[in-house]
Amino acid sequence: MKKTYREILKWGDKHEEQIDEGTLRVLKKKFEMSDADINNKMLTGDTEVKLDKKVSLDEKFINEFISISGEENVKYDDYSRAEHSFGKFYTDLMNLRKEQIKTPPDLVIFPRNDDEIEKIISICKDNNIALTPFAGHSSVTRGVETPKGGVSLDLTKHINKVIEVNEKNTTVRVQTGMYGPAFEDYLNNFGDSYSCGHFPQSFEYSTVGGWVAARSAGQASTGYGKIDDMILAMKIITPSGIIQTKDYPSTAQAWDLNKIFIGSEGTLGVITEVTMKIRKFRPQNTSYASFIFKNFEFAVEAMRTIMQSGIGKPHLFRISDPEETDISFKTMNFDNTLADKFIKTLGYKTGERCLMFVAIEGDKDYAKFVKAKVKIIAKKFGGFFLGGKPTKKWLEQRYSSAYLREPLMDIGIMTDTIETAVTWDNLTQLRNEVIKYLKKRDKTVVMIHISHVYENGANLYITFLSPMAKENEIDDYVNYHKGLVDTIHKNKGSLSHHHGIGRSLAPWMMDEMGKENMALLQAVKNHLDPKGIMNPDGTLGLK
Amino acid sequence: MKKTYREILKWGDKHEEQIDEGTLRVLKKKFEMSDADINNKMLTGDTEVKLDKKVSLDEKFINEFISISGEENVKYDDYSRAEHSFGKFYTDLMNLRKEQIKTPPDLVIFPRNDDEIEKIISICKDNNIALTPFAGHSSVTRGVETPKGGVSLDLTKHINKVIEVNEKNTTVRVQTGMYGPAFEDYLNNFGDSYSCGHFPQSFEYSTVGGWVAARSAGQASTGYGKIDDMILAMKIITPSGIIQTKDYPSTAQAWDLNKIFIGSEGTLGVITEVTMKIRKFRPQNTSYASFIFKNFEFAVEAMRTIMQSGIGKPHLFRISDPEETDISFKTMNFDNTLADKFIKTLGYKTGERCLMFVAIEGDKDYAKFVKAKVKIIAKKFGGFFLGGKPTKKWLEQRYSSAYLREPLMDIGIMTDTIETAVTWDNLTQLRNEVIKYLKKRDKTVVMIHISHVYENGANLYITFLSPMAKENEIDDYVNYHKGLVDTIHKNKGSLSHHHGIGRSLAPWMMDEMGKENMALLQAVKNHLDPKGIMNPDGTLGLK
Repeated sequence: MKKTYREILKWGDKHEEQIDEGTLRVLKKKFEMSDADINNKMLTGDTEVKLDKKVSLDEKFINEFISISGEENVKYDDYSRAEHSFGKFYTDLMNLRKEQIKTPPDLVIFPRNDDEIEKIISICKDNNIALTPFAGHSSVTRGVETPKGGVSLDLTKHINKVIEVNEKNTTVRVQTGMYGPAFEDYLNNFGDSYSCGHFPQSFEYSTVGGWVAARSAGQASTGYGKIDDMILAMKIITPSGIIQTKDYPSTAQAWDLNKIFIGSEGTLGVITEVTMKIRKFRPQNTSYASFIFKNFEFAVEAMRTIMQSGIGKPHLFRISDPEETDISFKTMNFDNTLADKFIKTLGYKTGERCLMFVAIEGDKDYAKFVKAKVKIIAKKFGGFFLGGKPTKKWLEQRYSSAYLREPLMDIGIMTDTIETAVTWDNLTQLRNEVIKYLKKRDKTVVMIHISHVYENGANLYITFLSPMAKENEIDDYVNYHKGLVDTIHKNKGSLSHHHGIGRSLAPWMMDEMGKENMALLQAVKNHLDPKGIMNPDGTLGLK
Repeated sequence: MKKTYREILKWGDKHEEQIDEGTLRVLKKKFEMSDADINNKMLTGDTEVKLDKKVSLDEKFINEFISISGEENVKYDDYSRAEHSFGKFYTDLMNLRKEQIKTPPDLVIFPRNDDEIEKIISICKDNNIALTPFAGHSSVTRGVETPKGGVSLDLTKHINKVIEVNEKNTTVRVQTGMYGPAFEDYLNNFGDSYSCGHFPQSFEYSTVGGWVAARSAGQASTGYGKIDDMILAMKIITPSGIIQTKDYPSTAQAWDLNKIFIGSEGTLGVITEVTMKIRKFRPQNTSYASFIFKNFEFAVEAMRTIMQSGIGKPHLFRISDPEETDISFKTMNFDNTLADKFIKTLGYKTGERCLMFVAIEGDKDYAKFVKAKVKIIAKKFGGFFLGGKPTKKWLEQRYSSAYLREPLMDIGIMTDTIETAVTWDNLTQLRNEVIKYLKKRDKTVVMIHISHVYENGANLYITFLSPMAKENEIDDYVNYHKGLVDTIHKNKGSLSHHHGIGRSLAPWMMDEMGKENMALLQAVKNHLDPKGIMNPDGTLGLK
């Protein structure tokens, strides 16, 4: 088997690498592309991986690591190192396509247990060797790069088991290198049948540990909360010792240490185990609803009212803005059908109207009750009920839109997403300014949705597609991205709601957080990682 | 007006200092007390406060503080210092009754604004003067004592205003020295009418800042969460600068710094402002229910099932164990009424049966829906529905039971409460062992309830009454309390669910948290408070 760059940049084998007919139709029109353009693949990365940078780690350390984890679990061939060089940020993918891997790790270790991790950390600490925890590498923020080389510690091979399900407490103790699907499958099939309730879009290729390290949010977060709200206890192996917390449902014994490690992005230590809340898995109970609103403002006001009315909460709760709604309608071939024409006669116009998706889980009657209440409130804001089908249809393809990125990049389309959190009072202006900024670029599609909702505000999830600047793809993207983050930051959006910061957003951290807050983050790091070996050089804006 | 020790130990003027007839009847029987015993008041603390310990702070600093906050806001008379020496821990009250104030602050300052606080902290830091934030002094964990003298910084006089209510975001920005009733009243009367949703038992005499500093839980916490879940943004003035966070509904920009200050108990800095979630105030929508169960186990299983069934959540949710239920029935004169006799014939026996109280807030239909579901589940576990009245009656006196402490202590009864959090699987054994330990002492009443409930476990709130050991009241209590905390700690209860740690529980912190966790807490403190001036000497087990 040829070990190519493309194999690294792919998400995996669960999906076909091709663009569906509906999307193709839209693309051709939006970007004025011919069939020839569509068939002209560029920068596919189909060559074999070769690294210029040699392993610079002393052989004596390599042998020490081998004596700890075994020869089969210590890799330093070009492909293994290349595979552990990047996440899934846009420039990562471009660099792989351009066959540029400047800072691979020297070594990849697949530790077999926590004792080995402790020993590996100890050696790295004593000898100033950089150590970067690695799992699903779905980071879209340059969170797993190894600018100082050293060891990439891959937890997915061995540190990937459920340790215990406690049905009485409805909790699971799990090792952090376990992938989403295996974890969910285990829970679905255990005892009375459970669900982890956490489904980020990267679910199929991300791990429990990644969710925790990057403060991830799942598609049902409006009901179940972010990963922050699900973690009860943790074990973190740091260069200064092992931090372990207990699974009390809540405490008041000093401040909550879990919260220091949720969002630590590998900078403080290796999270090896968590105890997490689980819920009964009863998909047959779920209620679905979808609505169309006359404009974005009405949809948002309906959403805000639903969240603040004390009627219970939807689990999945989304609004697509007009452009996203329009493209959904077109790619799903709904546009200009008889049904669509009917909706238009009611005043739900293309370019203004917005889709809302709702799903409520839990007890069957509860799901029905909340759905009925949501319908009443939606109607007050002019929401037209479209039944449950559009939401179910969306759920069927819930993970796949991310996989479109590669075939789009293959044909020269820059496509990326960015996300932010914002209070209700700043949401409209933030969205307007983001669109204004992104649309300054010619032929750019901007789709925005809200997908994680709170009483006090929501996230905005922004997808943009635009033709690449040929020959200057990376710099062009970096500049465009910089202006976008500046726009979000200026208009009171957070730097991230659930992707994390990594190295891509680190340059804004000082301005966003302030000097004192950054000093506090750094002080915590300095205590736990005095030599600065953990995911070093820039993640979170830390030294 | 005579300025006595008793004025300090009292909760305030909102309540009568006498024991109601029902309670008196029970007391006489349980403790075999005669009318003479009941009328024989001891250690009432009715003498004028006089301190042996003189102000040891250099006059030059006193003048500096006066130049900052004005003469009327800097106090060093005996009564002011005495008033700021203690919270409401059992030994605090005993020491006041015995007229023993060993470590009063040198000075009490009532700063007028944040600038003054910054200046005061700066002087204290430069000159190694201890500084302890002070507000409602309802701490029951020795959290506001001043073993190193110095300044007690009282925020209640000036730092006590609502800065802004944001109706769109449903948030309030408030200064932390504001008392519960004034805060709630302000919100009830603002715009569309709001509630803070946070009602700890100390509500009438505690402040927003105290709630945050001690990780407090209110009586509606099962629905609204603890204070941890309500705080969106904070301003903390520390010796190393000002930490300020933003009111995003959620973020993934590094770890959550708010969570370091929630539960910091004044050891890191002075929390001067918070932005907090608020809810619509619609008391007319609330649904009430109460039930009687045949035993504690059935009641707990019903409660656990309700929390894990995805039917929505009660806001107030309580179970009283058999002894607490028995005493409630007796003090309310319900015992042996016709209704009681009827219930007994159904098998709900004295000494085994348990009361459950439920209240659901929010939308009217939601409250009704959840109540109906709770009734169905309660019935499955043999719960007999008693209507809404007992819960409403309980709510009417929700704050007053704490005020019974003084008149009980006046007649020689040691009375105290302690609380813990525990997972469902350890709850029964923990309760059994606590009772076994406490009942080793002759003539001891032990009442336990659950009052804050989670999917994964609950708190236990333990009240005990026992005759004082005359002449040896303090040591006797301290030993008894020590054995109780040991018992809780050994049986997997947390050191605290919502009272905090202070100095009274600090001796257990190392064993509970572990060396590495304590080192991390200390490192955070060392960074923010390098001279160790903030609430120094033992709070949270910190140096």
